[in-house]
Amino acid sequence: MIIIGERINGMFKDIGQAVREMDPKPLQEWAIKQQEAGATYLDINTGPNTDDQVTAMKWMVQVVQEVSDLPLCLDSTNYDAIEASLELCKKPAMINSCPADRPKIERVFPMAVKHNAKIIGLTMDAKGIPKNADNRIALAMELVAAADEFGLPMEDLYIDPLILPVNVAQDHAPEVMEAIRQTKLLSNPAPKTVLGLSNVSQKSPDRPLINRTYLAMVMACGLDAIIADANDDDLMATAATGEILLNQSVYCDSYIKVFKSR
Amino acid sequence: MIIIGERINGMFKDIGQAVREMDPKPLQEWAIKQQEAGATYLDINTGPNTDDQVTAMKWMVQVVQEVSDLPLCLDSTNYDAIEASLELCKKPAMINSCPADRPKIERVFPMAVKHNAKIIGLTMDAKGIPKNADNRIALAMELVAAADEFGLPMEDLYIDPLILPVNVAQDHAPEVMEAIRQTKLLSNPAPKTVLGLSNVSQKSPDRPLINRTYLAMVMACGLDAIIADANDDDLMATAATGEILLNQSVYCDSYIKVFKSR
Repeated sequence: MIIIGERINGMFKDIGQAVREMDPKPLQEWAIKQQEAGATYLDINTGPNTDDQVTAMKWMVQVVQEVSDLPLCLDSTNYDAIEASLELCKKPAMINSCPADRPKIERVFPMAVKHNAKIIGLTMDAKGIPKNADNRIALAMELVAAADEFGLPMEDLYIDPLILPVNVAQDHAPEVMEAIRQTKLLSNPAPKTVLGLSNVSQKSPDRPLINRTYLAMVMACGLDAIIADANDDDLMATAATGEILLNQSVYCDSYIKVFKSR
Repeated sequence: MIIIGERINGMFKDIGQAVREMDPKPLQEWAIKQQEAGATYLDINTGPNTDDQVTAMKWMVQVVQEVSDLPLCLDSTNYDAIEASLELCKKPAMINSCPADRPKIERVFPMAVKHNAKIIGLTMDAKGIPKNADNRIALAMELVAAADEFGLPMEDLYIDPLILPVNVAQDHAPEVMEAIRQTKLLSNPAPKTVLGLSNVSQKSPDRPLINRTYLAMVMACGLDAIIADANDDDLMATAATGEILLNQSVYCDSYIKVFKSR
């Protein structure tokens, strides 16, 4: 399971303030904390209240790379900011994200190929997020076709079938499970799959319980990666246990420790 | 999710002693405790050290039914004990269990039909437990055919693909998940599926973590029932959350409380 640590995001108050004041300390602390907890990528998102997204994201990438050697997941709808930041990334990055929308595909896929980056491809288009698995898969197929067209290796495409909060869109949760299963059948080799996990539990009372239960369920469906809270110890223990139960890593009594120190 | 409370079993020291001394109190206390925790069936197992299994099981059934109106799961390899106990059950019981072995099928299926009981059918035969999903499914199909032959309603057949401890037979865990998925395709209506959940974690350090993670994973594969520790609150919360995320019960903020008081 690939764990993309979600915490370096301007939507969080401490990071938002740090980005505005160009104070590297909070970003660097979270980079180290997430890496120590077992994150395999660090998400980098300037947040909404930044005048100059290009400058902000480039600065974030630089200060985070001063303290962590993890690859980065550049999270923005501003593709100029992503493109400028790709130049600075020391390791192949992930672009978060590209919908199944032709103008955006034409903007994102070539820059990913140029920089050897991976793409998180969203199963949504200008009309929004489909309600069922079948329509999500139709959009996933457009992203798979785009990977072929632009020469992105299929294993560098991460399909995100977009989970919604279970307390407002409960019927989406099983449809997303089915979409994950079917995505693995779209091509050979198959694209990878990813979810922004924390979204499933928004505004529910016991968010960590819902997050980790859904994680185990989508792992059983073949999920490869999550954008999530790497510092939720119970969540990481669930991810480690899921890998053991899928026979993806070898059992030993201290398997959680092994998982976190990969 | 059907929760078959595992605790009234002579393998546990307090119950073993109570059965030998014919002291109803420990059985009745566990019956009430499991029912209050949300169990939907109570497993009844005399344990190995009982001279007269028939008398012991009949006594257990009687004293448990004095305090609980839950249906019972008669758990024994002694079919005389099960048959005698079926006569006493106030609600349709479950027979735990029958392997895919012809002489045992011929003994168990007719008594189940006569008493309107359900059967837990094991995917094992005289040669033992198969290693992979395909061979488990071949044995499940023999049990499905037996249900047809003897007139057991298909929804009263619970296929148990038999999970082994992950620390000694790790490769079985994903094979059991696949067997659960495929069992649901064997007939229409499909047989139900059940697991003796606690077995997956035997002799591992953090048993509850492994149990509840595997529960969420097998729920995503379509599992209908578990024989498990109904008094493990975290496990029951996982079962409740799994039902919500499968859209099998309607979300409300207090869904765990609703699940336990069904």
